[in-house]
Amino acid sequence: MAIKNGDFIKLEFTGKIKETGEVFDTTNEEIAKEAGILVENKEYGPIPIVVGGNHLLKAIDEAVIDLDVGDSKEIEVSPADGFGERDSNLIQLIPMKEFKKQGMTPHVGMELTSEGHKGRVLTVSGGRVKVDFNHDLAGKNLEYSIVISDIIEDDEEKIKSMIQLHYSYPNMDLDKTEIKIDGDKVSIKLDEITRFDQKSYMDVTFARFRISKDIWDNMDYEKVEFVDEFEKKVEEGEDQSSEENNESEE
Amino acid sequence: MAIKNGDFIKLEFTGKIKETGEVFDTTNEEIAKEAGILVENKEYGPIPIVVGGNHLLKAIDEAVIDLDVGDSKEIEVSPADGFGERDSNLIQLIPMKEFKKQGMTPHVGMELTSEGHKGRVLTVSGGRVKVDFNHDLAGKNLEYSIVISDIIEDDEEKIKSMIQLHYSYPNMDLDKTEIKIDGDKVSIKLDEITRFDQKSYMDVTFARFRISKDIWDNMDYEKVEFVDEFEKKVEEGEDQSSEENNESEE
Repeated sequence: MAIKNGDFIKLEFTGKIKETGEVFDTTNEEIAKEAGILVENKEYGPIPIVVGGNHLLKAIDEAVIDLDVGDSKEIEVSPADGFGERDSNLIQLIPMKEFKKQGMTPHVGMELTSEGHKGRVLTVSGGRVKVDFNHDLAGKNLEYSIVISDIIEDDEEKIKSMIQLHYSYPNMDLDKTEIKIDGDKVSIKLDEITRFDQKSYMDVTFARFRISKDIWDNMDYEKVEFVDEFEKKVEEGEDQSSEENNESEE
Repeated sequence: MAIKNGDFIKLEFTGKIKETGEVFDTTNEEIAKEAGILVENKEYGPIPIVVGGNHLLKAIDEAVIDLDVGDSKEIEVSPADGFGERDSNLIQLIPMKEFKKQGMTPHVGMELTSEGHKGRVLTVSGGRVKVDFNHDLAGKNLEYSIVISDIIEDDEEKIKSMIQLHYSYPNMDLDKTEIKIDGDKVSIKLDEITRFDQKSYMDVTFARFRISKDIWDNMDYEKVEFVDEFEKKVEEGEDQSSEENNESEE
């Protein structure tokens, strides 16, 4: 069945810079290894998106329309549709003494962060350091090869795919995630291991909100709840079905 | 009705060191102010406990038995029943150079933390610093005055009292906490503001576990769930009862 907007799909992709053939992103572990961009502990393999959900570049959302499982496609992406044109205002000259103040010795190619923006040192000379705050891929023509791995039809699997996309917790087991659907409400009980997350509750809330929004916007449910259940451990020898738990300590 | 083990109560207390009359802890804001131990942003007033739940000193759990609302009592607590006897092994001589290494200049009365243990400098002389890692109240005879403010009978109020005790989040409104009881299961929807907690999810999990445990141990429920619900916002002009949300973007 041909892919349309709002479909939940899984795809593999590899993105290259057109001019150089350099691979900058891929879902394939072997290709990442060959290109020298392997990220430790990252799970490689097909990634889920909602078509039209802006989870990847818009050009990819558009390219998958009408494809089917197993289809592949090459996409060319202009800078405007990719990571933007290069902006010369984002190249800044910074006095060397600013670096010295912070005990830094800048060198060409060094990456740094200033007020939340990532930059890369272009030149160091005459007591001044030229830093480029453009995105590494700004001004580049890109080529993506994509392969459609799956079109997800089942509602539970759709929901799980959005958890996979938005909820990053190492070793979380999606098979241990319970999903209950009741009318217009989806109830999600995540793998219990996620309760021991060191991330802030607020960060988890934002991830949950993104999952909920993709469900509202693309499925016929209006409420999404996340449930953590704590259950009394019945001690050995005790009857699990017993309703009596009034251990008087008087 | 006289208080017994397992009751949910609220009480006011003030704890003093018997020998000196110095107030070291109190639920009363005025008394805290007078004693110079006022903690900013702390909510003063009666605090909830489960009798026998070890939320305060065991001596207090025992003292409230058979009291009733409005009753007050003076309790004497020996060091053994309070914060322990003083242990001379917990007084340590530390070479001054260890402090210098860390750029610290120790002085008498200075508080410090070493491997998670709080200590206080007793003397500084001859290149050595004597630090006492005993609890400030170790070895002290204590006097508590308590007043029983309330005996909580209602199950919802009991549950809310344990949230108040264990779940510390500034500006959380217990009136915005929804509690549903269904058979042996308690379902708790906390004030939505708590979702933006900067604390780690794990810390929140521990607080929730403590609440759940006090419920299991002292009430006739075996499961406690915490629910965060996310609901689609209906845009203005849209009919809230409408089941149609398939905005086709094709």
